[in-house]
Amino acid sequence: MTPIPSDHIVKSYDEERHRLLDETLRMGELAATQLEAALAVVADRDNVAAARIVAADKAIDRLEQDISQDVMKLALRGPMARDLREILVAIRITSDIERIGDYAANVAKRSTALNLAPPLPQIGGLQAIGRLAVAQLRDVLTAYRDSDIDAARRVRDSDVAIDTAYTALFRELLTHMMEDPRAITPCTHLLFMAKNIERIGDHATNIAENVWFLVHGEDDLPPREKRDNSSTLAPDADTGAHPD
Amino acid sequence: MTPIPSDHIVKSYDEERHRLLDETLRMGELAATQLEAALAVVADRDNVAAARIVAADKAIDRLEQDISQDVMKLALRGPMARDLREILVAIRITSDIERIGDYAANVAKRSTALNLAPPLPQIGGLQAIGRLAVAQLRDVLTAYRDSDIDAARRVRDSDVAIDTAYTALFRELLTHMMEDPRAITPCTHLLFMAKNIERIGDHATNIAENVWFLVHGEDDLPPREKRDNSSTLAPDADTGAHPD
Repeated sequence: MTPIPSDHIVKSYDEERHRLLDETLRMGELAATQLEAALAVVADRDNVAAARIVAADKAIDRLEQDISQDVMKLALRGPMARDLREILVAIRITSDIERIGDYAANVAKRSTALNLAPPLPQIGGLQAIGRLAVAQLRDVLTAYRDSDIDAARRVRDSDVAIDTAYTALFRELLTHMMEDPRAITPCTHLLFMAKNIERIGDHATNIAENVWFLVHGEDDLPPREKRDNSSTLAPDADTGAHPD
Repeated sequence: MTPIPSDHIVKSYDEERHRLLDETLRMGELAATQLEAALAVVADRDNVAAARIVAADKAIDRLEQDISQDVMKLALRGPMARDLREILVAIRITSDIERIGDYAANVAKRSTALNLAPPLPQIGGLQAIGRLAVAQLRDVLTAYRDSDIDAARRVRDSDVAIDTAYTALFRELLTHMMEDPRAITPCTHLLFMAKNIERIGDHATNIAENVWFLVHGEDDLPPREKRDNSSTLAPDADTGAHPD
């Protein structure tokens, strides 16, 4: 005999699902705040605030562990297909957010190394792609909250803007390094900071693809253009980028 | 009335578990092979082989999707706590392997940009940390196969060797760039290639921590030392690294 689930049990399962979504969104917002704070310390050259951001990354890691526990509890209740997709998607998205948190913390950490040298003019370019990444992250979290595949697709498609801006900044930094060898070390940190932000854009795209999967149940978002050509930039930075 | 599971169903569940483990190990070995091949094309300056490695990364991505489907099927059967940990761990490990595959492909991709300039003497250093990473990956896959927490812990603790070698290579490359500004672009690619390999070491460590979690059921591997100080390297590369 199959027992009819009582209202109490059904409600509680639903409550736990909402808790899982809320926690994941909270974790995502924490990562967005960390990234914003990291960009601010780069602009302000504030080493104390940078150390605070690095330390705060632990909170994101702890949230990921809490969410894992909740996911296990939910999965133990023998969920059905759509519920199971929710669980799988929550695991994947929290893993993306955890990485975004790491990248934001690394931006903050590198800013302290940057502050040992005179300010670089390319900081403005970093701030610009940083702001794009913050917006993408917030947009994709909203798309996740609302199971909104159109919004998810817009986030995925807008990643090309980050990639293009990253490739331009990458060239600019190489040119600057060639003109002024004393700037090589700070420029290298800035290159990695820019790369971190470009990777955050990729993780936002992963989250968008998971929103699609959550709703459609297959990994079939049409392929997107990839515009980060920096991996194949010729040794002479002026030669132009090869297609990926 | 609780139905007694037939031998057929029990056996089949066990078969599916083994299939999941086998697939994950196969995916891991594919990533190890890709990384080895990527290191070889860097040494051989072989652009055709590099393109082949980049294309082969799709096979790893497809495997991850197949494994996701299998995980969903397994989870739908209402597994118990240890089984559920197996499922969660498989998801996390495949996600780490997928990233390792991406990094290996990116090493191959950047090698073609490197081949537009004369060979760099630091290639040897890259090969050395690359070999450490390949060994770590193979060791941690074996630890996962055998649920061997001692082996997993050894892998986790040996990551410090990769971090130390990476930081040394990072300094060496910065010095080289300052001495020869024409080498800036190829050195930058080599910096990112080294960073990719250092990240592969981190993902091998993640896998080791998941083997621990699989066996012990809590995220309590004692904290490890982190020796990658390159994020806080002073602008003057000779000043020395700050502690993390």
